[in-house]
Amino acid sequence: MSFYQKLKTAVDANHSLVCVGLDSELNRIPEFLKNHTYPLFEFNKRIIEATSDLVCAYKPQIAYYAACGKENELLMTLDFLRSHCPNIPIILDAKRGDIGATARMYAKEAFEHYQADAVTVNPFMGGDTLQPFLDYSEKGVIVLCRTSNPGAEEFQNLKSDGIPLFQIIARKAANEWNKNKNVLVVVGATYPEELTTVRHLIGDMPILLPGIGAQGGNIELAMKAGLTAAKDGLIVNSSRGIIYASIENDFAEKARAAAEELLQAINAFR
Amino acid sequence: MSFYQKLKTAVDANHSLVCVGLDSELNRIPEFLKNHTYPLFEFNKRIIEATSDLVCAYKPQIAYYAACGKENELLMTLDFLRSHCPNIPIILDAKRGDIGATARMYAKEAFEHYQADAVTVNPFMGGDTLQPFLDYSEKGVIVLCRTSNPGAEEFQNLKSDGIPLFQIIARKAANEWNKNKNVLVVVGATYPEELTTVRHLIGDMPILLPGIGAQGGNIELAMKAGLTAAKDGLIVNSSRGIIYASIENDFAEKARAAAEELLQAINAFR
Repeated sequence: MSFYQKLKTAVDANHSLVCVGLDSELNRIPEFLKNHTYPLFEFNKRIIEATSDLVCAYKPQIAYYAACGKENELLMTLDFLRSHCPNIPIILDAKRGDIGATARMYAKEAFEHYQADAVTVNPFMGGDTLQPFLDYSEKGVIVLCRTSNPGAEEFQNLKSDGIPLFQIIARKAANEWNKNKNVLVVVGATYPEELTTVRHLIGDMPILLPGIGAQGGNIELAMKAGLTAAKDGLIVNSSRGIIYASIENDFAEKARAAAEELLQAINAFR
Repeated sequence: MSFYQKLKTAVDANHSLVCVGLDSELNRIPEFLKNHTYPLFEFNKRIIEATSDLVCAYKPQIAYYAACGKENELLMTLDFLRSHCPNIPIILDAKRGDIGATARMYAKEAFEHYQADAVTVNPFMGGDTLQPFLDYSEKGVIVLCRTSNPGAEEFQNLKSDGIPLFQIIARKAANEWNKNKNVLVVVGATYPEELTTVRHLIGDMPILLPGIGAQGGNIELAMKAGLTAAKDGLIVNSSRGIIYASIENDFAEKARAAAEELLQAINAFR
């Protein structure tokens, strides 16, 4: 099944555009889990069990595991996701990008070693560096377009012949790179104007939308700017706003409540 | 000791600008090593033993290890480098880049978990996303500027107000991001004209120069374009051209010969 299909199946089944970002950090998880043999995995497992009927995707960010050499707990988390909720797609947030020979290794890392359903990639080095990812036609390739951080405009809004870089990328994502119908783009919820423009440029292509929650993106503005005519086409990620809704023993319950609140806030505009 | 100092010490001690890229891949190493418990480490160890008096840096590319879950062999390689040749700086080629909270994790991965002396980073998301790396003032932060791949021009040469993006990045690297004197840039040897321009824009800042060897960059053109007045300021990387000079039992000897040949070819212009 293609990534687009797997995503649509999950969106429809749970009537949800919510993606939970598993940016799980050893010094932010509840105390009682910290002495566990696999603390990040145990944390993730409980978050997943509490939310898997409310989401359309999970998005572990690999840096949180790699920073402390806990790649094994990322692998355990992915295994758990595949057994507990096999119909929910897994996005590996890695923002990889390199020349062809190395890009093939990064694609292998994401799609074969971690068996993710999709990966985020950085297009700065050029379309040729995306090809090894695009060649996995059943996997999603999520290209950074207009990111959610405060400094995103520094390069992404630079205009060439009057067209900002993020729009050039959006056009290429839709018109050049999507031959296998497996491309998505990242646009921050923190920039609803840019989101409107990108939605116009890419048609119904799904958008990964970070920036809701801890980063301050407004849900109403983002929904009005980014939804397709069919009222979907967005993967609305929240990481810290959900997984750290509480850092006490009730964290899983509070994560569920936060995910449900986000789900309802989003669905009010669908 | 700062990265600049550590680099200069190694350049002067070995009278070398050669960097060996440890892009070690399981299916390209000699047959007799493949059944070893730690094949990539054993391969690297022999390459390092054969070349450490000829180089100014080693540059393992993390994707080759991560693609097959062999991060432990990367760690073993780095430990071996630190004990065998403690004065040779280690560049972790990772091309990381993400929003601040996550960039901090990537910086931790490179500088604390792997204890690299420098890391390559992707500036596409904006200068704010580089800050967590720059804050490690004793570590080198090597910013992609004009990469060596065929498609590099697609975005890096887009002109904004008449100035190509790679030049905007070079200026910022020199004038905005280098407060801690720990910034370097990547410019491909495959583009000597761009290299000339970047050298003009950044003064004596060191440049990591990929593209020599398997990628076809011309040494004479690159040296004339990129050397500083002091005849250094370049870290000339070769990966496949050295480590796979032979895939037989004599691979380490042949790697040494290839490194020596590159060293002499470079030094002919110094």
